[in-house]
Amino acid sequence: MKSIQLSGARDAALTDFADEPLAAGQVRVRMRRVGLCGSDAHFYDHGQIGRFRLDDGPVVIGHEGSGEVLEVGDGVDGLAVGDRVSIEPGIACGECRECRNGTYNLCVRMTFLGMPPNHGLLRERVVLPARNVHRVPEEVNLDEAALLEPLSVAVWSVQRAQLAAGERVLIAGAGPIGLLVARVAVAEGAAEVIVTDIDRERLDRIGAEPGVKAVDVSGGWDGVPDDLDVFLECSGAPTALDDGMGRLRPRGRAVLVGVPGKPQIAISSTIIRYGELSLTAVHRYAGTWPRAIELLATGKVGLSDLVTARYSLSETPTALLDAAERRVALKAMIEVDAS
Amino acid sequence: MKSIQLSGARDAALTDFADEPLAAGQVRVRMRRVGLCGSDAHFYDHGQIGRFRLDDGPVVIGHEGSGEVLEVGDGVDGLAVGDRVSIEPGIACGECRECRNGTYNLCVRMTFLGMPPNHGLLRERVVLPARNVHRVPEEVNLDEAALLEPLSVAVWSVQRAQLAAGERVLIAGAGPIGLLVARVAVAEGAAEVIVTDIDRERLDRIGAEPGVKAVDVSGGWDGVPDDLDVFLECSGAPTALDDGMGRLRPRGRAVLVGVPGKPQIAISSTIIRYGELSLTAVHRYAGTWPRAIELLATGKVGLSDLVTARYSLSETPTALLDAAERRVALKAMIEVDAS
Amino acid sequence: MKSIQLSGARDAALTDFADEPLAAGQVRVRMRRVGLCGSDAHFYDHGQIGRFRLDDGPVVIGHEGSGEVLEVGDGVDGLAVGDRVSIEPGIACGECRECRNGTYNLCVRMTFLGMPPNHGLLRERVVLPARNVHRVPEEVNLDEAALLEPLSVAVWSVQRAQLAAGERVLIAGAGPIGLLVARVAVAEGAAEVIVTDIDRERLDRIGAEPGVKAVDVSGGWDGVPDDLDVFLECSGAPTALDDGMGRLRPRGRAVLVGVPGKPQIAISSTIIRYGELSLTAVHRYAGTWPRAIELLATGKVGLSDLVTARYSLSETPTALLDAAERRVALKAMIEVDAS
Amino acid sequence: MKSIQLSGARDAALTDFADEPLAAGQVRVRMRRVGLCGSDAHFYDHGQIGRFRLDDGPVVIGHEGSGEVLEVGDGVDGLAVGDRVSIEPGIACGECRECRNGTYNLCVRMTFLGMPPNHGLLRERVVLPARNVHRVPEEVNLDEAALLEPLSVAVWSVQRAQLAAGERVLIAGAGPIGLLVARVAVAEGAAEVIVTDIDRERLDRIGAEPGVKAVDVSGGWDGVPDDLDVFLECSGAPTALDDGMGRLRPRGRAVLVGVPGKPQIAISSTIIRYGELSLTAVHRYAGTWPRAIELLATGKVGLSDLVTARYSLSETPTALLDAAERRVALKAMIEVDAS
Repeated sequence: MKSIQLSGARDAALTDFADEPLAAGQVRVRMRRVGLCGSDAHFYDHGQIGRFRLDDGPVVIGHEGSGEVLEVGDGVDGLAVGDRVSIEPGIACGECRECRNGTYNLCVRMTFLGMPPNHGLLRERVVLPARNVHRVPEEVNLDEAALLEPLSVAVWSVQRAQLAAGERVLIAGAGPIGLLVARVAVAEGAAEVIVTDIDRERLDRIGAEPGVKAVDVSGGWDGVPDDLDVFLECSGAPTALDDGMGRLRPRGRAVLVGVPGKPQIAISSTIIRYGELSLTAVHRYAGTWPRAIELLATGKVGLSDLVTARYSLSETPTALLDAAERRVALKAMIEVDAS
Repeated sequence: MKSIQLSGARDAALTDFADEPLAAGQVRVRMRRVGLCGSDAHFYDHGQIGRFRLDDGPVVIGHEGSGEVLEVGDGVDGLAVGDRVSIEPGIACGECRECRNGTYNLCVRMTFLGMPPNHGLLRERVVLPARNVHRVPEEVNLDEAALLEPLSVAVWSVQRAQLAAGERVLIAGAGPIGLLVARVAVAEGAAEVIVTDIDRERLDRIGAEPGVKAVDVSGGWDGVPDDLDVFLECSGAPTALDDGMGRLRPRGRAVLVGVPGKPQIAISSTIIRYGELSLTAVHRYAGTWPRAIELLATGKVGLSDLVTARYSLSETPTALLDAAERRVALKAMIEVDAS
Repeated sequence: MKSIQLSGARDAALTDFADEPLAAGQVRVRMRRVGLCGSDAHFYDHGQIGRFRLDDGPVVIGHEGSGEVLEVGDGVDGLAVGDRVSIEPGIACGECRECRNGTYNLCVRMTFLGMPPNHGLLRERVVLPARNVHRVPEEVNLDEAALLEPLSVAVWSVQRAQLAAGERVLIAGAGPIGLLVARVAVAEGAAEVIVTDIDRERLDRIGAEPGVKAVDVSGGWDGVPDDLDVFLECSGAPTALDDGMGRLRPRGRAVLVGVPGKPQIAISSTIIRYGELSLTAVHRYAGTWPRAIELLATGKVGLSDLVTARYSLSETPTALLDAAERRVALKAMIEVDAS
Repeated sequence: MKSIQLSGARDAALTDFADEPLAAGQVRVRMRRVGLCGSDAHFYDHGQIGRFRLDDGPVVIGHEGSGEVLEVGDGVDGLAVGDRVSIEPGIACGECRECRNGTYNLCVRMTFLGMPPNHGLLRERVVLPARNVHRVPEEVNLDEAALLEPLSVAVWSVQRAQLAAGERVLIAGAGPIGLLVARVAVAEGAAEVIVTDIDRERLDRIGAEPGVKAVDVSGGWDGVPDDLDVFLECSGAPTALDDGMGRLRPRGRAVLVGVPGKPQIAISSTIIRYGELSLTAVHRYAGTWPRAIELLATGKVGLSDLVTARYSLSETPTALLDAAERRVALKAMIEVDAS
């Protein structure tokens, strides 16, 4: 079959890939759509991403995918040939303490598709454990099914923030993740959602969201309200975490969602101490697909408008270059099945 | 009456102080003992402490105190002349959102005795709201009653860490606060308590505590166990927070207790993200005296051995100099009532 | 001034009432609207309500009220003459452990207006602590301002259930409280809200609510879905608590909102044990007015349609009789200011 | 091999039992000790226990067991032939929502050994999944290893009560479970532990426990302190739950540990409502062996003194009769390996 493999920095190509055998408990999926995310663009641009390197050879990239069930292994319940499905790309071991406690996202033996050395979804067919394949209802189209992955990041982030209905929420960063976090916060009953950014175009777009107030912080954070309940840092900007925490009420909660440009981040101990604030972070997601599907199927959160550029599978190298050079407004979608 | 007032850096003197009137709901206490804490020594040494400065003139210092009730105002229940009492030095407004939610330590209108411009306890008599005056049982002596204040910091820290019995605890820093936090953690059922330091004498002392394991980190943190549940940073050392968080299990909890030497602290976002760790901090305490008294009265936590130097009220300037120049092993106690 | 006083079972009359002096921290309110609730009808019908009896003479009834500020005492911030306000009828002591922990609804020294021996709101003017007087924004009319009290019961109930967005909720009882609990649950992001009743008219009404599914249980609970997350018992029916708990998932949470007809309630220990279910209850509310006002002002919850009958102050005895004899579909509203 | 099988009410006999094959991931254990619990005596006495009946023929009884590893299947880590082990008798499916959320005790597909139709531990050899076999350290003898099962019930009960150090605890029932719950509560830092019973001998025994106060309630509950934080009902007495809840502080927590004589239990809605109390229950345990082993190995909780009668495997019918007729003070221990 055809696949898109990355061999090094800015070196992606359409390459043949062998079909995998199907074991009990597994499902074979014909891929239809794969979204590209900021980490794909970063991986393409640098040939590595954090601790993940291409030391063991090229890998198929892509981890936001949807498709149709082609074949169903023994012992699989609840999935049938032809089902339209969204793929959860993290395969947890199922045995360790974290897997048994409902936090399988922290499983140290996690196989995450599209992160070396694990091949990802930009190929014609993929074999997956049935648990990683979520059937979507009629109301959800294939683009949206692929974007359930980034929506899951947003759902998890809002859960980790322990957002209660009626709370006031600050979000730094109006990119795709900040946008989805804002939509989920509104859907889950936030009384006020404020999103900061420094980019005029992003601010205009996020400011048009129902229930969201955009604040331009290019000249400083003076215009940002304070005494807020929750802060979700989704920008990766070096000082945003500290700036945002400074706007929290006593006992306010901050969540690090975006991956900072540098691993080391500086925070003001005075702000944390005087307010007894709390800070935590998110690492992917666990058990979020049902909620994400429901938010989407009931219309509480929309996803289709995120797709601002479309490519066929063979055009993926162009899509990656466009994304790396920031020519994609929000999200590039690969139509794997396009001819 | 006599008092010890600080007028500037290293400028403390025995000075006259006028008695205060007694209003309804208040109690007049004859001071008997006042402990000196690291912040007193810092305040003496620099003539300021954080945002608190001597701009409005000299202040009486001291906030760890005990004494006897001399006079009881109208409407005060539960206190009588002659009662031996421990003083809670933070006077909260009682009206704001924080005061009504059980987190009065975060009251922005807090009057904290001994922090400018509020006079502290190193004087012969003090008038206080009845709520700040805690009667101690017979088993508790006056030294211990004064040290209920630092014990309260430890009780609050362990509560903020949400320590559950059977958990494994890491503490950085074997000074008086680290020592008390370790004792409270042991008393509250920690399965394992590990304390790090770089000072040989402190390590020997803490290593002799029942249930505590001391680890010398002067050459690095390699000897510190990992997969721990809770980390309490009590050292103020610039890198200890990051080092300690690196030893936590997934979803482990870190609490910043010590005041860092510099307000800005650096933490590794990678460690926080991959483990979805949480970080919070403590700011004084709220509602801790009953529990601290009980730990002390039942013998679960001892305090008397913390006093390693004694001074009369008039000798306080010498005590402050000794503390600032680190000639006091653990805790200097002022006997206000000594002749 | 005129007031409505209850002297015994079915004995309510328009009676003169003396104006109260205004102390510091207090506000005098001209009453405009007072809603009647099921407990008012019960109190009128029986001349007592639970442990509250008329032993010390007649009392003015009514505890769901709105009006306008007539006079403001010394030291009151944030309220001015002419402000339109909603009244919180429970006056807590502000000093006890419960009051200091944010659960002032559990204050044992609570003065609850309209419960003997405390006079209530069915009179022309009332003096209240400023803390019990909540200014409402323009979007909120006087009927709605009066109904913020029952809405507060619903807000508190949903908070006590620790409802998370996306959860599935069962409510027993489609009366005014069940209806408001359902509206709040929908507003706060419940994925599914099911309400049971045995009355056809109530079922039709609740079934027309957006996001709510009505289930007739007059013939049994077979049609009620199971594996639900949260159950709120709002019917007072003797077996509803047990029936509803039987529909919960493992670790599901039940909340007793309605006052059972008999104090003693029977539950199945088997159901609680095998699912490790939890059961708790609500007693009034604490700190709910800001959230209730926001739900109302933003249109997330409506209240005006609850008023199905209107009376002047002098017609209140008729209104009470109508309510006691179940001739009021949902809520009787007294227009205190009507001539 | 020899086994003890129950065929009906008061009909237990030494019977041959065939050895089971050993699959991958399993361990064969030579049984050494099996404790009898109240549910064994009840099962023996009635020939059924709750919903569990002998419809499919006789079953081997017993679920509190220890022994030595005889044989280790493929893929088993951390266990070796000769290891001394304690057996966790509930075999969860490992796949369902409950199993994945850390609450495998609520798994509806649970195979619980010794409950029909699943054979239990009163036999010479048993094959078990490795996950159900816990190696014990040297400090733990075989009697104690068998009693880790009832200790697990106590550990879980105290966890479910969310007991915080320093809280005041009430326990109803001074039988083996009440006794173990009291010991765990003391070990985990309860400030005060009060145990009620009506049996003089049990009261004397429990009153001799360090940190425990016994209260005789045969004449009523007047002598029981109130304003308590936590109540654990371990007696099964019909009115104890209601009596105990009446002694809780506002927001106090009750946990149903004992199995009531009748499934239907009556509670006072007034008490629950006015205090916004919470009630939950325990169903076996999940993940408790490590903590139970630690409490035992560190001496924080003792178990050996629970054994008040000893029998060989062939004497088990006598032991069951003694237990059913209440001739065993606390716990009968079967020495499976005795000749």
